[in-house]
Amino acid sequence: MRIIVVGATGTIGKAVARLLSTEHEVVRVAFRSGDFRVDMSQKESIELMFRDAGEFDALVCAAGVARFGSLAELTDDDFQTGLTGKLMGQVNLVRVGMHFIRDHGSFTLTSGVLSHQPMPGSSSISMINAGLEGFVRAAALELPRGIRINVVSPPWVKETLEALDMDSSAGMPAQDVAQAYWASIHGARSGLVINARDFT
Amino acid sequence: MRIIVVGATGTIGKAVARLLSTEHEVVRVAFRSGDFRVDMSQKESIELMFRDAGEFDALVCAAGVARFGSLAELTDDDFQTGLTGKLMGQVNLVRVGMHFIRDHGSFTLTSGVLSHQPMPGSSSISMINAGLEGFVRAAALELPRGIRINVVSPPWVKETLEALDMDSSAGMPAQDVAQAYWASIHGARSGLVINARDFT
Repeated sequence: MRIIVVGATGTIGKAVARLLSTEHEVVRVAFRSGDFRVDMSQKESIELMFRDAGEFDALVCAAGVARFGSLAELTDDDFQTGLTGKLMGQVNLVRVGMHFIRDHGSFTLTSGVLSHQPMPGSSSISMINAGLEGFVRAAALELPRGIRINVVSPPWVKETLEALDMDSSAGMPAQDVAQAYWASIHGARSGLVINARDFT
Repeated sequence: MRIIVVGATGTIGKAVARLLSTEHEVVRVAFRSGDFRVDMSQKESIELMFRDAGEFDALVCAAGVARFGSLAELTDDDFQTGLTGKLMGQVNLVRVGMHFIRDHGSFTLTSGVLSHQPMPGSSSISMINAGLEGFVRAAALELPRGIRINVVSPPWVKETLEALDMDSSAGMPAQDVAQAYWASIHGARSGLVINARDFT
């Protein structure tokens, strides 16, 4: 398969690209580097990326910015950043990409554990992640030509916690999280929220 | 209690206002009429409404516009309408209203069955409704002064189906849906997605 990985330079994206490249051709896409570049907050940039990248069998998105902060302190701009960058960014990868993807291809997006296990400070991120899951459940009913869509919900990732200087003992290594994306691509089901914890 | 009902002229809002007014003072708010008016897509309009309406013990929102349409045909504007009007509209009622609501007050928002039971054409609405539920789960962890927040998920409403000239035999009468809002306001729990079907 030819597989586009958006966010290929991030912690999860790098691990997904590495795992997929053992058996597939991986096209690495990111904001600042990679085979192709994309600004997910700009639909025109997404369209250009797909036109440049050409046909593909699967797309993984492990990118998208949303801001953490207390409900009282999050600004309009903080909310908008998540809506534009992480929520509509991923939705638009599907809306545009569905016209470029091959028959029986698949989209695998990324939400996160905060959707259903919130914590103080996560009101914007929990909203974004849950919204993505609602979109995926619905979009799966309409994608034509045998195209599938799922969303992986990763827990806190070990490498991310280490980078934040937080206790990483309960974190899941990115290479383990990558297994959930592999399962989405190689499975037959669609419209799923895939809990990455189910693959350890 | 003094209870603000936003969307008091809609099918559900009217039934909620009628039920609540048997025991409480109800302040009716809507886009075009009511005791006070609000354009939920404009944060300034929300701020003005709260300043005019004064202190309150509970707020119900049964308003918010989102567009139905196939994934291939929904436009950027269709998605934006739901994000601005129904998702951030309700989120902003909480973000602004939390500074006006009395101690131990409550917010009750409205999502909908399409969040978890999508149908072809619901990709934007399912995204919006699920996003609201994620927001409510998280915001409940942070609201100060004993303030609570829940979201009611109504099924298809009988009167709405009748107005759309659709089979309404499986629809739930608005006056029954209103019981879920009553339960949210008079209960003690917070951060819940309340399935209106649980009250028949």
